[in-house]
Amino acid sequence: MEKFSILSTALAVPANRVTNNDLSQMMDTSDEWIKSRTGIRQRHITQGQTTTDLAYAVAQKLLDKAHLAASELDFIIVATMSPDALAPTVSTQVQGLLRANNAFGIDINVACTGFVSALSLAAKLIETRYQHGLVIGAETLSRLVDWHDRSTAVLFGDGAAGVLVGKTDAEVGLIGEGFKSYGDQGAALTAGQLNQHTVFNATDVPTDLSFHMDGRAVYQFATRRVPELILRVLAENDLSVDDVDLFILHQANARIIQSIAHHLDQPLDKFPINVEEYGNTSAASVPILLAELQAQGQLQPGQKIMLAGFGAGLTTGTTLIQI
Amino acid sequence: MEKFSILSTALAVPANRVTNNDLSQMMDTSDEWIKSRTGIRQRHITQGQTTTDLAYAVAQKLLDKAHLAASELDFIIVATMSPDALAPTVSTQVQGLLRANNAFGIDINVACTGFVSALSLAAKLIETRYQHGLVIGAETLSRLVDWHDRSTAVLFGDGAAGVLVGKTDAEVGLIGEGFKSYGDQGAALTAGQLNQHTVFNATDVPTDLSFHMDGRAVYQFATRRVPELILRVLAENDLSVDDVDLFILHQANARIIQSIAHHLDQPLDKFPINVEEYGNTSAASVPILLAELQAQGQLQPGQKIMLAGFGAGLTTGTTLIQI
Repeated sequence: MEKFSILSTALAVPANRVTNNDLSQMMDTSDEWIKSRTGIRQRHITQGQTTTDLAYAVAQKLLDKAHLAASELDFIIVATMSPDALAPTVSTQVQGLLRANNAFGIDINVACTGFVSALSLAAKLIETRYQHGLVIGAETLSRLVDWHDRSTAVLFGDGAAGVLVGKTDAEVGLIGEGFKSYGDQGAALTAGQLNQHTVFNATDVPTDLSFHMDGRAVYQFATRRVPELILRVLAENDLSVDDVDLFILHQANARIIQSIAHHLDQPLDKFPINVEEYGNTSAASVPILLAELQAQGQLQPGQKIMLAGFGAGLTTGTTLIQI
Repeated sequence: MEKFSILSTALAVPANRVTNNDLSQMMDTSDEWIKSRTGIRQRHITQGQTTTDLAYAVAQKLLDKAHLAASELDFIIVATMSPDALAPTVSTQVQGLLRANNAFGIDINVACTGFVSALSLAAKLIETRYQHGLVIGAETLSRLVDWHDRSTAVLFGDGAAGVLVGKTDAEVGLIGEGFKSYGDQGAALTAGQLNQHTVFNATDVPTDLSFHMDGRAVYQFATRRVPELILRVLAENDLSVDDVDLFILHQANARIIQSIAHHLDQPLDKFPINVEEYGNTSAASVPILLAELQAQGQLQPGQKIMLAGFGAGLTTGTTLIQI
C-alpha cells in the first residue's frame, strides 16, 4: 500500500446554475429529453471565473479545513482538460496565489480520468519523498462547448474539487490501482483542437476548442471497460466487489453508472450519483462527489473506496483507497 | 534512491531547418543578432508533423533500440505545452499508435520543466508499481509562435525526445530532485490563452495561442534560481558540484547556461549545449540533448547527471540521476 491520508476535501463551483429548461430556450431540447437520457437536471456554468479561480478556491478551502499553512505544501497537482492557458499552468498559478512558496505545480491531462490519475501520482510522491500535497480536478468545460450543438451542450458543466493528502503511519492510502488507455478510440471524444496556421505549418484544420463526441461509442466503452478494470484491480489485491464500501465513479451520465453497478452485481446505493446537479465536470466530477459525501458524513474511517474515471483518450482509471 | 535504468534514448525532429538567415528575410532580424544573444543558428520547424507524430517517432525508436515489445509498456508520460488537442491527449494517441495495449498515457504540462518533472514521476511509478515506461518531451512550438514578433519568433523550435525506463536491481536511478514553482511570476512567459467566447462566458480576452515573453525577467530568474536549486539538491544528498559529471540543462539560451556554469564555478565542458541546432524546444530540449550525448558515446555507466529545466510558470526543476 502506498500510504497517505486525506486530510481534507473541498469543492468550488460557479454560482450560476443553468437548468435544462434554460437550455431548452436556447436550442431544440427539453428537460425530459436530457433528464431521461443523462440524469442531468442542471449544471453550474462560469460567468467569468477561470479554471484557476475555481482551483484556487478549492485549494484555500482544503488548507483552511485542515489548518495547514500553504508553506507546508510540497506539491500541487491539477488535473484539467480546460486550462486557462498552456503557459502558465493552472497549478503554478494556484501555487502563486496561495503563496505556497515551497511547492511545485504540475498540470496533468487525462481528461475525465484526470483526478484518479493525479491521486495515483500523489500517492507515489508521498510514498517516496514528500509530506503534503494538493490534488485538484478543475474544469471550465463551458469554454469548450459549442452552444449550438445540442448533442454535447447539454452534458457538461464547470467546477473544481480536490483533496489535501499527507504522509501518515496509519494503514490508509492506495490499496491498488489500474489505468488503461485506448488511444485507437481517441476519435470518439475530442476537444480543444489547437491548430495555429503559421507560415510554416499550413494546416487545413483550424483551431476548434469545441467538444465532438460519439456518445454511443463512449457509452459502450465505459459500461464495458470500467467494470472490467474494477474487477481486475480487485482480483490483483485479493478482494471482491463486496469488499468495496463505495464506488465513486466519474459522473458523465447516470445510466452509465447504473449499468456499471448492474454489471458488478452491486446495489445502486454503493454508487452515489450527483450528475443531476453538476453535469459532466470531467476531472472535477470524482472529487466533487467525494467532497459532498465527506460533507454529508458518508465517509467513515476504515472504508474501502473505489474511485474510477473514464473518458476522452479513450481512457479508464481506478484507484482503490482505504480511508 | 528511486531505482530505474535508462534502457534507451531517442529523438525525432522535423526535417525542415529554418536558419537565422531564413528568418531575417521574414522579419527585421539578423543571424549576428540572434546568434550573439541566444546562441541559436537554426531550428527545426514542422511542416505538418504534429506533436503526436514526433512523440510517436520517438516512442518507436525507444522500443526498437531496447528490443522491447510495445505490450511490455506500463505507461507513457508525455510532457508537452503544445499538445495537438486537449482531448485526446498526445500520450494516449501514442499509446494507440504503438498498440501498447497494457499501457496508460498521461500528459503533463510543466512547460520547459516538463521532461525533468515527467522523469521524476516515472521514477516513482517504477519504484512503487511498474516495470517499463516511456518518458517523452514533445513540442511543436512553431504553432505557438507569432511569426510577426521578432522578439520571440527567433527563439523556439520543434522536436521530441525521450527515454525508455525500466525497473532494475542496479544502483542507478534518481539520487535526488528538486522542483519549485514561482507562480507569482507567471506573467513573464505566457502562451496558449484558451478563451472561447460563449453565451455564458463573455470574456474580453480572445484565444491567442502565441508566446509573450519578458525575456529579461526570464533570464534573471533562470540564472539565479537554477543554480540555487542545483546547490540545494546537491546539499540534500551530501554531494558537491564537483561530484556531478554532466549538467544537462534546458536549452533556452546559451548565455543562460554559461551564466549558470559560472555561478556554480564549474568548467563549461560539463554543460553541453546544442541550442544552436534546435533553438528552445521546451520540454523536448533536455531529452534531445541526452539522446545526442548518448549517441556520441558521452554517457558512461556510473556518471552522475544533473538534469535541469526552467521556464514558464515560472518553474524550475532538477533530477540528479546516476546512470
